[in-house]
Amino acid sequence: MKPYNINYKSSVKRIFDEANFISLLGIKLEDVDVGICNASLELTTMHRQHLGRVHGGVLVTLSGHAATGAATSLIKDTQDVVAVEFKINILRSIESGRLFCLGKVIKPGGTLIICEAEVFEGADVTGKLVAKSIFTFMVIDKISGL
Amino acid sequence: MKPYNINYKSSVKRIFDEANFISLLGIKLEDVDVGICNASLELTTMHRQHLGRVHGGVLVTLSGHAATGAATSLIKDTQDVVAVEFKINILRSIESGRLFCLGKVIKPGGTLIICEAEVFEGADVTGKLVAKSIFTFMVIDKISGL
Amino acid sequence: MKPYNINYKSSVKRIFDEANFISLLGIKLEDVDVGICNASLELTTMHRQHLGRVHGGVLVTLSGHAATGAATSLIKDTQDVVAVEFKINILRSIESGRLFCLGKVIKPGGTLIICEAEVFEGADVTGKLVAKSIFTFMVIDKISGL
Amino acid sequence: MKPYNINYKSSVKRIFDEANFISLLGIKLEDVDVGICNASLELTTMHRQHLGRVHGGVLVTLSGHAATGAATSLIKDTQDVVAVEFKINILRSIESGRLFCLGKVIKPGGTLIICEAEVFEGADVTGKLVAKSIFTFMVIDKISGL
Repeated sequence: MKPYNINYKSSVKRIFDEANFISLLGIKLEDVDVGICNASLELTTMHRQHLGRVHGGVLVTLSGHAATGAATSLIKDTQDVVAVEFKINILRSIESGRLFCLGKVIKPGGTLIICEAEVFEGADVTGKLVAKSIFTFMVIDKISGL
Repeated sequence: MKPYNINYKSSVKRIFDEANFISLLGIKLEDVDVGICNASLELTTMHRQHLGRVHGGVLVTLSGHAATGAATSLIKDTQDVVAVEFKINILRSIESGRLFCLGKVIKPGGTLIICEAEVFEGADVTGKLVAKSIFTFMVIDKISGL
Repeated sequence: MKPYNINYKSSVKRIFDEANFISLLGIKLEDVDVGICNASLELTTMHRQHLGRVHGGVLVTLSGHAATGAATSLIKDTQDVVAVEFKINILRSIESGRLFCLGKVIKPGGTLIICEAEVFEGADVTGKLVAKSIFTFMVIDKISGL
Repeated sequence: MKPYNINYKSSVKRIFDEANFISLLGIKLEDVDVGICNASLELTTMHRQHLGRVHGGVLVTLSGHAATGAATSLIKDTQDVVAVEFKINILRSIESGRLFCLGKVIKPGGTLIICEAEVFEGADVTGKLVAKSIFTFMVIDKISGL
């Protein structure tokens, strides 16, 4: 996989910096490579559902944004990606601590890009696997701000 | 479908009242019936991703909590449900306004409960369909607080 | 939803007639309307897995071909659709008898078409719901035979 | 992951030998290890849909049976597994040749077992990735033959 956009790292950084919902949840970009994007989240009581566990919506938001970053690393500067569908399996319930998410492209493409994401307990991929997901993104022309 | 728990409406109300992440997002319980739970959300800029659209994580959190409510209406007072997997198709991008979500059980069960959820633009099911999802819940014994 | 292709019914008929795997399984086209395609299957011992139940692969093939028919009813004569992903929940195990599948488009589109399919026991939608699935199709230009 | 059943290899062999639909399609068991099951398929024209490509139902049947084998390697002699849901992304269309499928457990459990499967072109995992899927199995007590 080769990047079309030499500045892909700043493009990915921007999708984290400019997404209000990601800031609200406290999701941080960790690092980006071609077809890969890692993100992390320090859990607080804000992320919990009624049983005191992390809400599935938090896990899928973390996963989805890392996957979006991975897909974004492979598109042109004039393009964006939007998720058309995704599926997650939650393998372990979790209440607190830190989460690390590895997002990666498993099939690049001009119309669709398929990514998967894995969420681990702790600070890196050596932690227990908490959730696994797959995302289908559609590549679109960037929406003009004019 | 028949409820095991005569007080199922207050059980469902509680899963909305006691979930921090649901309060944070502003998701409201609309109404509950046996195997059905409706929820709504008034969108703000807080819910947006980097392109100014509602983040997929918001749509799936709204859908998932309505589905959890629907499943909860069918369990015993001594039980809870946890989502083991879900899948959503986002059919339309949306930026602002109000969303209405209809969650319903499509297959009740003692071990697993399968629900689907539909998100509509506006205040009820007459709006345009924004997203459709399916959830697999596992029924568990309530975690004792003692 | 409006058909681009006035002969959409014969296009759908053709995708059933010309698919070897569908003939092998004994899947029959029942009827077609704009955005809708129904199919049926008379179960035999050929369709079973090791426990004597119908294999999940049979249910998803029936569902997928009905969904393909529904999507095909909405494309141009110069186009085809290919499934890029799908997800099924098997709600009931089944061993014999007849299955009826209702496939329908839930979101038409020029690039992607989203369909769902429901499989029922018996000869029509009044039977018990056996499986529910959702499919994402990509619209492609017809592959030239020349 | 540790096997409960010392004879897990013959249990997995049996689910391939005794499944009519798997014999019909020509799917072969390749090898089994704890939490892993590989299968293969020599494609013929029988496996095709109307465009001459392999039907998605074939890919998901191959994937699902390998995943079932992987899950079966981890259950007790008195148990079976049944798929409650699955999701596949088809990454590449394919017409002929040989397919190799690697199925593996990503989360064992006493009630649910989660597996993923990858289908590759050719005779092993070095081929191009054709499809990726995830399966949720429920563990059930073996159905008595008496």
